[in-house]
Amino acid sequence: MSYLGVGVSPGNVSGSTTKMKLIDRKVRVTELILRCLVCVLALVAAILIATDVQVREIFMIQKKAKFTDMKALVLLVVVNGIAAGYSLVQAVRCVVGLMKGRVLFSKPLAWAIFFGDQAVAYLCVAGVAAAAQSAAFAKLGEPELQWMKICNMYGKFCNQVGEGIASALFACIGMVLISCISAFGVFRLYGGSKSRPSSRW
Amino acid sequence: MSYLGVGVSPGNVSGSTTKMKLIDRKVRVTELILRCLVCVLALVAAILIATDVQVREIFMIQKKAKFTDMKALVLLVVVNGIAAGYSLVQAVRCVVGLMKGRVLFSKPLAWAIFFGDQAVAYLCVAGVAAAAQSAAFAKLGEPELQWMKICNMYGKFCNQVGEGIASALFACIGMVLISCISAFGVFRLYGGSKSRPSSRW
Repeated sequence: MSYLGVGVSPGNVSGSTTKMKLIDRKVRVTELILRCLVCVLALVAAILIATDVQVREIFMIQKKAKFTDMKALVLLVVVNGIAAGYSLVQAVRCVVGLMKGRVLFSKPLAWAIFFGDQAVAYLCVAGVAAAAQSAAFAKLGEPELQWMKICNMYGKFCNQVGEGIASALFACIGMVLISCISAFGVFRLYGGSKSRPSSRW
Repeated sequence: MSYLGVGVSPGNVSGSTTKMKLIDRKVRVTELILRCLVCVLALVAAILIATDVQVREIFMIQKKAKFTDMKALVLLVVVNGIAAGYSLVQAVRCVVGLMKGRVLFSKPLAWAIFFGDQAVAYLCVAGVAAAAQSAAFAKLGEPELQWMKICNMYGKFCNQVGEGIASALFACIGMVLISCISAFGVFRLYGGSKSRPSSRW
Protein backbone atom coordinates (compact mmCIF):
# COMPACT_ATOMS: atom_id res chain seq x y z
CA MET A 1 0.00 0.00 0.00
CA SER A 2 1.52 3.29 -0.92
CA TYR A 3 1.48 6.06 1.70
CA LEU A 4 0.76 9.33 0.01
CA GLY A 5 -0.34 12.73 1.23
CA VAL A 6 -3.80 13.12 2.82
CA GLY A 7 -6.28 14.84 0.59
CA VAL A 8 -4.52 13.66 -2.60
CA SER A 9 -6.90 11.62 -4.79
CA PRO A 10 -5.40 8.42 -6.24
CA GLY A 11 -6.09 9.76 -9.75
CA ASN A 12 -3.53 12.53 -9.74
CA VAL A 13 -1.14 10.65 -7.46
CA SER A 14 0.05 8.29 -10.19
CA GLY A 15 0.36 11.35 -12.49
CA SER A 16 2.68 13.19 -10.12
CA THR A 17 4.67 10.04 -9.35
CA THR A 18 5.20 9.34 -13.05
CA LYS A 19 6.27 12.94 -13.53
CA MET A 20 8.78 12.58 -10.67
CA LYS A 21 10.12 9.38 -12.20
CA LEU A 22 10.55 11.12 -15.55
CA ILE A 23 12.51 13.91 -13.89
CA ASP A 24 14.55 11.32 -12.02
CA ARG A 25 15.40 9.52 -15.23
CA LYS A 26 16.39 12.75 -17.03
CA VAL A 27 18.62 13.79 -14.14
CA ARG A 28 20.32 10.39 -14.12
CA VAL A 29 20.91 10.39 -17.87
CA THR A 30 22.34 13.93 -17.64
CA GLU A 31 24.58 12.78 -14.81
CA LEU A 32 25.82 9.82 -16.87
CA ILE A 33 26.60 12.00 -19.89
CA LEU A 34 28.44 14.55 -17.73
CA ARG A 35 30.48 11.86 -15.99
CA CYS A 36 31.56 10.34 -19.33
CA LEU A 37 32.49 13.82 -20.60
CA VAL A 38 34.54 14.58 -17.49
CA CYS A 39 36.29 11.21 -17.78
CA VAL A 40 37.32 11.90 -21.38
CA LEU A 41 38.28 15.56 -20.88
CA ALA A 42 40.34 14.82 -17.77
CA LEU A 43 42.11 11.97 -19.54
CA VAL A 44 42.87 14.18 -22.55
CA ALA A 45 44.22 16.91 -20.25
CA ALA A 46 46.47 14.49 -18.38
CA ILE A 47 47.81 12.91 -21.60
CA LEU A 48 48.38 16.24 -23.37
CA ILE A 49 50.46 17.57 -20.48
CA ALA A 50 52.26 14.36 -19.53
CA THR A 51 53.42 13.70 -23.11
CA ASP A 52 54.48 17.31 -23.72
CA VAL A 53 58.20 17.57 -24.51
CA GLN A 54 60.26 20.06 -26.50
CA VAL A 55 64.02 20.01 -27.07
CA ARG A 56 65.84 23.27 -27.93
CA GLU A 57 69.50 23.92 -28.61
CA ILE A 58 70.57 27.01 -26.69
CA PHE A 59 74.23 28.08 -26.98
CA MET A 60 75.12 24.63 -28.32
CA ILE A 61 73.51 22.97 -25.28
CA GLN A 62 70.48 20.75 -25.77
CA LYS A 63 67.72 21.83 -23.40
CA LYS A 64 64.60 19.74 -22.89
CA ALA A 65 61.33 21.17 -21.57
CA LYS A 66 59.05 18.61 -19.92
CA PHE A 67 56.04 18.83 -17.59
CA THR A 68 58.00 17.63 -14.56
CA ASP A 69 59.93 20.92 -14.68
CA MET A 70 56.89 22.64 -13.13
CA LYS A 71 55.28 21.24 -9.98
CA ALA A 72 51.89 22.72 -10.83
CA LEU A 73 51.79 20.69 -14.06
CA VAL A 74 52.62 17.51 -12.16
CA LEU A 75 49.76 18.36 -9.77
CA LEU A 76 47.42 18.94 -12.71
CA VAL A 77 48.28 15.57 -14.29
CA VAL A 78 47.70 13.79 -10.96
CA VAL A 79 44.41 15.62 -10.28
CA ASN A 80 43.08 14.88 -13.78
CA GLY A 81 44.12 11.26 -13.46
CA ILE A 82 42.11 11.02 -10.24
CA ALA A 83 39.14 12.81 -11.81
CA ALA A 84 39.18 10.51 -14.86
CA GLY A 85 39.37 7.34 -12.73
CA TYR A 86 36.70 8.56 -10.32
CA SER A 87 34.36 9.54 -13.16
CA LEU A 88 34.79 6.15 -14.83
CA VAL A 89 33.78 4.32 -11.65
CA GLN A 90 30.81 6.63 -11.15
CA ALA A 91 29.74 6.26 -14.79
CA VAL A 92 29.67 2.48 -14.39
CA ARG A 93 27.55 2.91 -11.25
CA CYS A 94 25.15 5.14 -13.19
CA VAL A 95 24.80 2.65 -16.06
CA VAL A 96 24.11 -0.22 -13.67
CA GLY A 97 21.55 1.95 -11.83
CA LEU A 98 19.80 2.94 -15.06
CA MET A 99 19.73 -0.64 -16.37
CA LYS A 100 18.25 -1.94 -13.12
CA GLY A 101 15.83 1.00 -13.05
CA ARG A 102 16.74 1.49 -9.39
CA VAL A 103 19.84 3.08 -7.96
CA LEU A 104 21.99 0.79 -5.91
CA PHE A 105 22.51 2.94 -2.90
CA SER A 106 21.01 4.24 0.31
CA LYS A 107 21.34 7.61 2.05
CA PRO A 108 24.86 6.91 3.37
CA LEU A 109 26.07 6.06 -0.12
CA ALA A 110 24.30 9.14 -1.52
CA TRP A 111 26.29 11.15 1.04
CA ALA A 112 29.52 9.38 0.04
CA ILE A 113 28.93 10.21 -3.62
CA PHE A 114 28.10 13.81 -2.72
CA PHE A 115 31.33 14.24 -0.72
CA GLY A 116 33.33 12.45 -3.42
CA ASP A 117 31.96 14.75 -6.11
CA GLN A 118 32.54 17.88 -4.00
CA ALA A 119 36.13 16.84 -3.18
CA VAL A 120 37.02 16.05 -6.81
CA ALA A 121 35.36 19.26 -8.03
CA TYR A 122 37.31 21.45 -5.60
CA LEU A 123 40.52 19.50 -6.33
CA CYS A 124 40.03 20.14 -10.05
CA VAL A 125 39.42 23.87 -9.48
CA ALA A 126 42.56 24.15 -7.31
CA GLY A 127 44.65 22.18 -9.82
CA VAL A 128 43.54 24.28 -12.78
CA ALA A 129 44.04 27.57 -10.86
CA ALA A 130 47.58 26.66 -9.80
CA ALA A 131 48.49 25.46 -13.30
CA ALA A 132 46.97 28.55 -14.92
CA GLN A 133 48.97 30.77 -12.57
CA SER A 134 52.19 28.94 -13.48
CA ALA A 135 51.34 29.16 -17.18
CA ALA A 136 50.80 32.91 -16.79
CA PHE A 137 54.25 33.26 -15.27
CA ALA A 138 55.75 31.16 -18.10
CA LYS A 139 53.92 33.13 -20.78
CA LEU A 140 54.29 36.67 -19.40
CA GLY A 141 57.16 36.34 -16.94
CA GLU A 142 57.17 38.47 -13.76
CA PRO A 143 59.45 41.47 -14.41
CA GLU A 144 59.18 42.78 -10.84
CA LEU A 145 60.76 39.56 -9.61
CA GLN A 146 63.12 39.09 -12.59
CA TRP A 147 61.38 35.86 -13.57
CA MET A 148 61.87 35.55 -17.35
CA LYS A 149 59.11 34.26 -19.59
CA ILE A 150 59.99 30.97 -21.23
CA CYS A 151 57.25 30.49 -23.79
CA ASN A 152 59.14 32.57 -26.31
CA MET A 153 61.77 29.81 -26.32
CA TYR A 154 59.46 26.80 -25.93
CA GLY A 155 56.43 27.85 -27.99
CA LYS A 156 55.26 24.37 -28.92
CA PHE A 157 55.59 23.11 -25.34
CA CYS A 158 53.58 26.02 -23.99
CA ASN A 159 50.83 25.68 -26.61
CA GLN A 160 50.28 22.04 -25.73
CA VAL A 161 50.23 22.89 -22.02
CA GLY A 162 47.62 25.54 -22.84
CA GLU A 163 45.47 22.94 -24.60
CA GLY A 164 45.82 20.61 -21.63
CA ILE A 165 44.77 23.33 -19.17
CA ALA A 166 41.77 24.21 -21.38
CA SER A 167 40.65 20.57 -21.41
CA ALA A 168 41.13 20.39 -17.63
CA LEU A 169 39.04 23.54 -17.25
CA PHE A 170 36.11 21.97 -19.11
CA ALA A 171 36.47 18.81 -17.04
CA CYS A 172 36.35 21.09 -14.00
CA ILE A 173 33.09 22.74 -15.13
CA GLY A 174 31.61 19.28 -15.68
CA MET A 175 32.59 18.21 -12.15
CA VAL A 176 31.01 21.36 -10.67
CA LEU A 177 27.72 20.56 -12.46
CA ILE A 178 27.90 16.94 -11.31
CA SER A 179 28.44 18.02 -7.71
CA CYS A 180 25.25 20.10 -7.94
CA ILE A 181 23.38 17.01 -9.22
CA SER A 182 24.67 14.85 -6.37
CA ALA A 183 23.75 17.59 -3.90
CA PHE A 184 20.24 17.50 -5.37
CA GLY A 185 20.32 13.72 -5.10
CA VAL A 186 21.20 13.54 -1.42
CA PHE A 187 19.51 16.59 0.09
CA ARG A 188 16.08 16.00 -1.43
CA LEU A 189 16.05 12.77 0.58
CA TYR A 190 15.66 15.09 3.56
CA GLY A 191 12.71 16.92 2.05
CA GLY A 192 9.80 17.18 4.55
CA SER A 193 6.48 16.13 2.99
CA LYS A 194 5.28 18.78 0.60
CA SER A 195 2.46 19.75 2.90
CA ARG A 196 4.55 21.75 5.40
CA PRO A 197 4.07 25.28 3.98
CA SER A 198 5.27 27.00 7.16
CA SER A 199 8.68 25.42 7.13
CA ARG A 200 9.82 26.93 3.80
CA TRP A 201 13.59 27.13 4.00
CA MET B 1 -6.15 22.22 7.96
CA SER B 2 -2.71 20.76 7.74
CA TYR B 3 -2.13 18.21 4.97
CA LEU B 4 0.06 15.51 6.33
CA GLY B 5 0.91 12.01 5.19
CA VAL B 6 -1.85 9.39 5.23
CA GLY B 7 -1.50 6.94 8.07
CA VAL B 8 0.31 9.49 10.31
CA SER B 9 -1.59 9.97 13.58
CA PRO B 10 -1.83 13.64 14.74
CA GLY B 11 -0.08 12.66 18.00
CA ASN B 12 3.33 12.01 16.56
CA VAL B 13 2.98 14.63 13.80
CA SER B 14 3.61 17.60 16.08
CA GLY B 15 6.57 15.68 17.56
CA SER B 16 8.25 15.18 14.18
CA THR B 17 7.48 18.75 13.09
CA THR B 18 9.00 20.16 16.26
CA LYS B 19 12.06 17.96 15.71
CA MET B 20 12.33 19.29 12.12
CA LYS B 21 12.07 22.87 13.38
CA LEU B 22 14.82 22.21 15.95
CA ILE B 23 17.08 20.87 13.21
CA ASP B 24 16.18 23.86 11.04
CA ARG B 25 17.10 26.27 13.80
CA LYS B 26 20.43 24.53 14.50
CA VAL B 27 21.33 24.55 10.82
CA ARG B 28 20.53 28.25 10.56
CA VAL B 29 22.55 29.17 13.64
CA THR B 30 25.49 27.12 12.30
CA GLU B 31 25.14 28.92 8.98
CA LEU B 32 25.16 32.31 10.72
CA ILE B 33 28.29 31.49 12.74
CA LEU B 34 30.10 30.17 9.65
CA ARG B 35 29.17 33.26 7.62
CA CYS B 36 30.49 35.59 10.33
CA LEU B 37 33.70 33.55 10.55
CA VAL B 38 34.21 33.66 6.78
CA CYS B 39 33.60 37.41 6.78
CA VAL B 40 36.26 38.00 9.44
CA LEU B 41 38.82 35.55 8.02
CA ALA B 42 38.46 36.87 4.47
CA LEU B 43 38.80 40.45 5.70
CA VAL B 44 41.92 39.57 7.72
CA ALA B 45 43.43 37.83 4.67
CA ALA B 46 42.76 40.80 2.39
CA ILE B 47 44.15 43.32 4.90
CA LEU B 48 47.26 41.24 5.73
CA ILE B 49 48.19 40.96 2.07
CA ALA B 50 47.15 44.43 0.92
CA THR B 51 49.12 46.18 3.68
CA ASP B 52 52.22 43.99 3.25
CA VAL B 53 55.28 46.08 2.30
CA GLN B 54 59.00 45.57 2.79
CA VAL B 55 61.80 47.88 1.68
CA ARG B 56 65.29 46.49 1.16
CA GLU B 57 68.49 48.18 0.06
CA ILE B 58 70.21 46.07 -2.57
CA PHE B 59 73.47 47.40 -4.06
CA MET B 60 72.65 50.88 -2.73
CA ILE B 61 69.26 50.81 -4.48
CA GLN B 62 66.08 50.88 -2.40
CA LYS B 63 63.79 48.04 -3.49
CA LYS B 64 60.23 47.83 -2.26
CA ALA B 65 58.23 44.57 -2.22
CA LYS B 66 54.46 45.05 -2.31
CA PHE B 67 51.49 42.77 -3.11
CA THR B 68 50.84 44.41 -6.49
CA ASP B 69 54.13 42.92 -7.70
CA MET B 70 52.38 39.54 -8.01
CA LYS B 71 49.09 39.25 -9.89
CA ALA B 72 48.02 36.22 -7.89
CA LEU B 73 48.15 38.27 -4.67
CA VAL B 74 46.05 41.01 -6.24
CA LEU B 75 43.54 38.31 -7.26
CA LEU B 76 43.53 36.93 -3.71
CA VAL B 77 42.85 40.36 -2.18
CA VAL B 78 39.98 40.96 -4.63
CA VAL B 79 38.48 37.49 -4.08
CA ASN B 80 38.66 37.81 -0.30
CA GLY B 81 37.14 41.26 -0.46
CA ILE B 82 34.22 39.82 -2.43
CA ALA B 83 33.89 36.89 0.01
CA ALA B 84 33.91 39.22 3.04
CA GLY B 85 31.28 41.54 1.54
CA TYR B 86 29.10 38.67 0.35
CA SER B 87 29.29 36.94 3.75
CA LEU B 88 28.34 40.16 5.56
CA VAL B 89 25.20 40.55 3.45
CA GLN B 90 24.27 36.91 3.96
CA ALA B 91 24.91 37.13 7.71
CA VAL B 92 22.48 40.06 7.95
CA ARG B 93 19.91 38.02 6.00
CA CYS B 94 20.40 35.13 8.44
CA VAL B 95 19.96 37.35 11.51
CA VAL B 96 16.77 38.87 10.10
CA GLY B 97 15.48 35.39 9.27
CA LEU B 98 16.25 34.06 12.73
CA MET B 99 14.70 37.07 14.48
CA LYS B 100 11.51 36.76 12.42
CA GLY B 101 11.52 33.00 12.99
CA ARG B 102 10.85 32.54 9.27
CA VAL B 103 13.25 32.91 6.42
CA LEU B 104 12.41 35.65 3.98
CA PHE B 105 12.80 33.79 0.77
CA SER B 106 11.16 31.39 -1.62
CA LYS B 107 12.60 28.66 -3.82
CA PRO B 108 14.03 31.08 -6.40
CA LEU B 109 15.90 32.99 -3.70
CA ALA B 110 17.07 29.70 -2.14
CA TRP B 111 18.49 28.87 -5.59
CA ALA B 112 20.13 32.30 -5.83
CA ILE B 113 21.80 31.85 -2.44
CA PHE B 114 22.92 28.34 -3.42
CA PHE B 115 24.53 29.57 -6.67
CA GLY B 116 26.04 32.56 -4.88
CA ASP B 117 27.61 30.32 -2.24
CA GLN B 118 28.90 27.85 -4.84
CA ALA B 119 30.41 30.64 -6.96
CA VAL B 120 32.14 32.33 -4.02
CA ALA B 121 33.39 28.97 -2.68
CA TYR B 122 34.96 27.99 -6.02
CA LEU B 123 36.34 31.52 -6.45
CA CYS B 124 38.00 31.28 -3.04
CA VAL B 125 39.50 27.87 -3.85
CA ALA B 126 40.88 29.13 -7.17
CA GLY B 127 42.27 32.30 -5.55
CA VAL B 128 44.01 30.42 -2.75
CA ALA B 129 45.41 27.78 -5.17
CA ALA B 130 46.88 30.42 -7.52
CA ALA B 131 48.34 32.43 -4.61
CA ALA B 132 49.77 29.31 -2.98
CA GLN B 133 51.41 28.35 -6.28
CA SER B 134 52.98 31.82 -6.59
CA ALA B 135 54.12 31.71 -2.96
CA ALA B 136 55.76 28.33 -3.63
CA PHE B 137 57.69 29.85 -6.53
CA ALA B 138 58.72 32.80 -4.36
CA LYS B 139 59.78 30.57 -1.47
CA LEU B 140 61.49 27.75 -3.42
CA GLY B 141 62.21 29.32 -6.80
CA GLU B 142 62.05 27.17 -9.94
CA PRO B 143 65.66 26.20 -10.81
CA GLU B 144 64.70 24.45 -14.06
CA LEU B 145 63.35 27.77 -15.36
CA GLN B 146 65.99 29.96 -13.66
CA TRP B 147 63.35 31.67 -11.52
CA MET B 148 65.15 32.76 -8.35
CA LYS B 149 63.49 32.52 -4.96
CA ILE B 150 62.86 35.92 -3.40
CA CYS B 151 61.82 35.07 0.15
CA ASN B 152 65.43 34.89 1.25
CA MET B 153 65.63 38.64 0.53
CA TYR B 154 62.10 39.63 1.63
CA GLY B 155 61.53 37.34 4.61
CA LYS B 156 59.10 39.57 6.47
CA PHE B 157 57.05 40.23 3.34
CA CYS B 158 56.79 36.54 2.58
CA ASN B 159 55.83 35.62 6.15
CA GLN B 160 52.95 38.08 6.15
CA VAL B 161 51.80 36.79 2.75
CA GLY B 162 51.91 33.29 4.22
CA GLU B 163 49.68 34.38 7.12
CA GLY B 164 47.28 36.01 4.65
CA ILE B 165 47.07 32.85 2.53
CA ALA B 166 46.47 30.74 5.66
CA SER B 167 43.60 33.01 6.71
CA ALA B 168 42.19 32.86 3.18
CA LEU B 169 42.40 29.06 3.28
CA PHE B 170 40.28 28.90 6.44
CA ALA B 171 37.79 31.33 4.90
CA CYS B 172 37.72 28.97 1.92
CA ILE B 173 36.93 25.94 4.09
CA GLY B 174 34.14 27.93 5.74
CA MET B 175 32.67 28.82 2.35
CA VAL B 176 32.75 25.17 1.24
CA LEU B 177 30.80 24.16 4.37
CA ILE B 178 28.33 26.99 3.82
CA SER B 179 27.77 25.91 0.23
CA CYS B 180 26.86 22.43 1.51
CA ILE B 181 24.33 24.00 3.91
CA SER B 182 22.73 26.06 1.16
CA ALA B 183 22.62 22.96 -1.06
CA PHE B 184 20.80 21.22 1.79
CA GLY B 185 18.53 24.25 2.09
CA VAL B 186 17.44 24.36 -1.54
CA PHE B 187 17.39 20.72 -2.61
CA ARG B 188 15.35 19.44 0.30
CA LEU B 189 12.56 21.70 -0.98
CA TYR B 190 12.36 19.16 -3.81
CA GLY B 191 12.05 16.22 -1.47
CA GLY B 192 9.17 13.95 -2.51
CA SER B 193 6.96 12.95 0.44
CA LYS B 194 8.76 10.47 2.62
CA SER B 195 6.38 7.72 1.61
CA ARG B 196 7.88 7.01 -1.83
CA PRO B 197 10.22 4.09 -0.94
CA SER B 198 10.69 2.97 -4.55
CA SER B 199 12.19 6.22 -5.74
CA ARG B 200 15.19 6.22 -3.38
CA TRP B 201 17.88 8.25 -5.12
